[in-house]
Amino acid sequence: MNKIRVVLAQINPIVGDIEGNYKKIVSSVKKAKKLKSDFIIFPELALVGYPPEDLLLNPDFLSVSFQFTKKIVDVSEDIVVLLGAPLLENNNLFNACFIIQNRKIKYVYKKTSLFNYSVFDEKRYFLFGNEMPLIFNSQLKFAVTICEDIWKKPFSVFYDFSHKVDIVFNLSASPFFVGKTKRRKKILKNLALKTGAYIVYCNLVGGQDELVFDGRSLIFSPQGEELICAKSFDEDFIVVDLDVRKKKLENDNIEKVRIEDFSVKRRRSIIIKKKDSRENRLEEIYKALVLGTHDYVVKNGFEKAVIGLSGGIDSSLTCVIACDALGKSNVIGVIMPSQFSSQESVEDAQKLAKNLGIKFFTVPIEEIFKVYREIFKKHFKKVADITFQNIQARIRGNILMAFSNNFGWIVLTTGNKSETAVGYCTLYGDTAGGFAVIKDIPKTLVYKLARFRNQQAGFALIPERVLRKPPTAELKPNQRDEDDLCPYKILDKIIDLYVEKNWDLKRIIKEGIPQDLVFKIISRIDRNEYKRRQSPPGIKITPRAFGKDRRMPITNRFIIKK
Amino acid sequence: MNKIRVVLAQINPIVGDIEGNYKKIVSSVKKAKKLKSDFIIFPELALVGYPPEDLLLNPDFLSVSFQFTKKIVDVSEDIVVLLGAPLLENNNLFNACFIIQNRKIKYVYKKTSLFNYSVFDEKRYFLFGNEMPLIFNSQLKFAVTICEDIWKKPFSVFYDFSHKVDIVFNLSASPFFVGKTKRRKKILKNLALKTGAYIVYCNLVGGQDELVFDGRSLIFSPQGEELICAKSFDEDFIVVDLDVRKKKLENDNIEKVRIEDFSVKRRRSIIIKKKDSRENRLEEIYKALVLGTHDYVVKNGFEKAVIGLSGGIDSSLTCVIACDALGKSNVIGVIMPSQFSSQESVEDAQKLAKNLGIKFFTVPIEEIFKVYREIFKKHFKKVADITFQNIQARIRGNILMAFSNNFGWIVLTTGNKSETAVGYCTLYGDTAGGFAVIKDIPKTLVYKLARFRNQQAGFALIPERVLRKPPTAELKPNQRDEDDLCPYKILDKIIDLYVEKNWDLKRIIKEGIPQDLVFKIISRIDRNEYKRRQSPPGIKITPRAFGKDRRMPITNRFIIKK
Repeated sequence: MNKIRVVLAQINPIVGDIEGNYKKIVSSVKKAKKLKSDFIIFPELALVGYPPEDLLLNPDFLSVSFQFTKKIVDVSEDIVVLLGAPLLENNNLFNACFIIQNRKIKYVYKKTSLFNYSVFDEKRYFLFGNEMPLIFNSQLKFAVTICEDIWKKPFSVFYDFSHKVDIVFNLSASPFFVGKTKRRKKILKNLALKTGAYIVYCNLVGGQDELVFDGRSLIFSPQGEELICAKSFDEDFIVVDLDVRKKKLENDNIEKVRIEDFSVKRRRSIIIKKKDSRENRLEEIYKALVLGTHDYVVKNGFEKAVIGLSGGIDSSLTCVIACDALGKSNVIGVIMPSQFSSQESVEDAQKLAKNLGIKFFTVPIEEIFKVYREIFKKHFKKVADITFQNIQARIRGNILMAFSNNFGWIVLTTGNKSETAVGYCTLYGDTAGGFAVIKDIPKTLVYKLARFRNQQAGFALIPERVLRKPPTAELKPNQRDEDDLCPYKILDKIIDLYVEKNWDLKRIIKEGIPQDLVFKIISRIDRNEYKRRQSPPGIKITPRAFGKDRRMPITNRFIIKK
Repeated sequence: MNKIRVVLAQINPIVGDIEGNYKKIVSSVKKAKKLKSDFIIFPELALVGYPPEDLLLNPDFLSVSFQFTKKIVDVSEDIVVLLGAPLLENNNLFNACFIIQNRKIKYVYKKTSLFNYSVFDEKRYFLFGNEMPLIFNSQLKFAVTICEDIWKKPFSVFYDFSHKVDIVFNLSASPFFVGKTKRRKKILKNLALKTGAYIVYCNLVGGQDELVFDGRSLIFSPQGEELICAKSFDEDFIVVDLDVRKKKLENDNIEKVRIEDFSVKRRRSIIIKKKDSRENRLEEIYKALVLGTHDYVVKNGFEKAVIGLSGGIDSSLTCVIACDALGKSNVIGVIMPSQFSSQESVEDAQKLAKNLGIKFFTVPIEEIFKVYREIFKKHFKKVADITFQNIQARIRGNILMAFSNNFGWIVLTTGNKSETAVGYCTLYGDTAGGFAVIKDIPKTLVYKLARFRNQQAGFALIPERVLRKPPTAELKPNQRDEDDLCPYKILDKIIDLYVEKNWDLKRIIKEGIPQDLVFKIISRIDRNEYKRRQSPPGIKITPRAFGKDRRMPITNRFIIKK
């Protein structure tokens, strides 16, 4: 038996910050070399961050990327570095893994299965590769794959490798959504069993606009046993020694595989860090929201965030997440009561701010509202209810943006997925801000997350009354969300079936929801695309979020007839 | 010689309005049958509108589409109908042309070259076909292609057809940008010469969100002569008789082509409508803006539009376009002066409204601004200049949105491409609205279009002073755009080279623009992605517009070092 020491460098790069990412990569390589590791693997496109989108069409971006790839080659002695970076070859761009050793690029693997669904547009940028390399050195044989390569066609390609390969490496940038880990583990386990190889899977971690990459890099044994699960929602550096059975090496030319000869140096003993990978579902969602918020705010150069506190559940949860992400000294609340705000709401908002220990301002909007009202009455014969409601939300939006402009704080918006879906929000009002923390969290889940966080705190961090009172926008007397819409339980079910599961209408109706209600809600979802298009990005946690994940035309007359 | 009568049905479908589009298609088929036509060709995906985006992932949408495809089959007797519609086959989706005759689907051609760049994501939805059919009937042989099929690989595929095919049909949805017609004609002419066939090219017309399809369907003779150019930016119905030389038919199995036997009925004499296709560049841009505005407003169910009139060139041009698109009785101006507005600006705005004969309101913002100012002074130790400037723009945005909410009018925003590029605008202020008419028009082109339109009017429809005075946002005393930014001539050149032409920085600097200025402007363009992401859609007229055409990450630390 040989021991091969492998390092999983689960890093959090910043899109576009090639020099910063390079520094992070080099420091990981140096650390791995000190530990006499044989291999170090980084996530997919780690050098440039993922997804770089149209930066990949920028010629300067590509040339800087290649310049820093070469710099990494220069520090790679006595270790094999598996580096994710773009490759420009004869004017064709590839999503590649540079296999680097002894200051040389030994081989460049080109991703074969390109993401072109959900939030991804890889075929917009990349050509696909058509070679799956089986790389030899004196003691082991390994294969390199990138992300989707092992998702879509794991077995057809790897049958050829069956029991010929010692380690299959996979560089990944697999964004989080609820339930994804389980799918990943199943695939990796199967792959291990089919190939009889160790599977070393290195996933990206960090937030990038709508996406959160959850890390949780994995190693499976040839027997299909989970050896390692790296940290979730955080960087990690895993060192592991893998037993590799010595066997007779094959001939040089094997069908469909490409061969390279490496001379890998010697190693020491095993250190296997074992972790429990099971996490509470609410906990993982909560962590995703915290990391997504932290990374959006910080990577965009902000330090502090400002949030309008209404005393309702959405702004309360958003504020708690922001405190967990940025620290309480970096979160500022603004309470903006009107004549329709109940005393309870104001008290609850104050209570929350005090519980969290954050600074808050109270800026009543009545005076401004009054001036607008007079102006509207002067110009409009009849002022519609909706005009009055929206202007209140927009005054609040303006005040928050004034804090933002004056102090350089980012405004976090507080809309949930249920209201985002049906457009139960005011454009340029409560949607005004830089980042929509709970945009992909349906209202019913907002409550669950709030209770989860209170439980974690060990007391009613979010005041109990906030959790119990019926949700209201408080833009007119005695307003209640569920009167304006329908019970959130039903609304969220329709959103789940129509938006996330993409079911047809007949099937949705068969679930027992009244047909008229289904038609009404779906039509509201369709009609409100224009609002979503002008809303800030937010964190995707479901298999199908609004945003890049669901690209509906605004001009759209499709209606299903009853 | 045989005469084959062909009808080009250059229609303007509405995305998602399958039943409405079906009616339009059937009425065209009936009209063509009355004229004893042999063929009728529609644009690409005419049945569902283009691009349908994620509607293509909706199972109900696909089933309704196929239901209406079958209905069209039912009316297709004694004519060959070339219908663009989606095809779902074994759970794979294709961008297809249904070749229909005698109430039967004779063959379904599947697009081979899928758009997956610029604004398009066809590979997100479709599989590509791998057969190029050469279809026989007793008198002629024809090929069917879809859009891009003849753009990217025109010759490799068509060599096989050389002088074996009488007509090559092409169903197209080719969006407008300046200079595209010339490219199209060159390609079609070459294709005619290489194949020795008539080229019958039917393009879509109409506005769809960011896109305008310009129509201008074409027919080229086998000698490469342009026989027909249909109307630009309008629907058209072209009837033409083509001479087809009789020749011996080939055997049934020809490599790479597929064979079908049709029995086409008889025909009458020639009516060739010849048109001058050359249009003034400014005129075609102007027409694109008018059609794009009309279709966005009307297809989204609005009748009237409201525009904030500042007395500046951008709002003036936008307002004139809106009047041309919707009629003056459907356009309402709102003049919203502050203490920083000059008397001239207010006069110029009034003059424009009077010249156009539109209704306008005057709503001064000073009173509201005063209340905000007091509030800010109370809460902020020091109020930044930018806070005061932005709040003025946001008050105006709120007032326009109140008109929108109260009367159901759409707000048209007035930002041009130059300010959109560098973020010289206020989010939720002047960017607040449903549609950004001149979003892709750089400031220097705004002036040219204004002069063009005045010339067309035969008088100073846009007051001469508006064209002469230096541009200003009028948000503080003595403000001038070119002091805050740089001369528009230089700014627009940088935008052209960096955004549209996608040049690298060295090359841009070589054009003689000071290096520091290039870095400053490019960094501003990059930093302001977040504003563009929350701005309304606008009409693409350049090869690379902001929007779906340029997908930059918001979180992006890429900076080129000097």
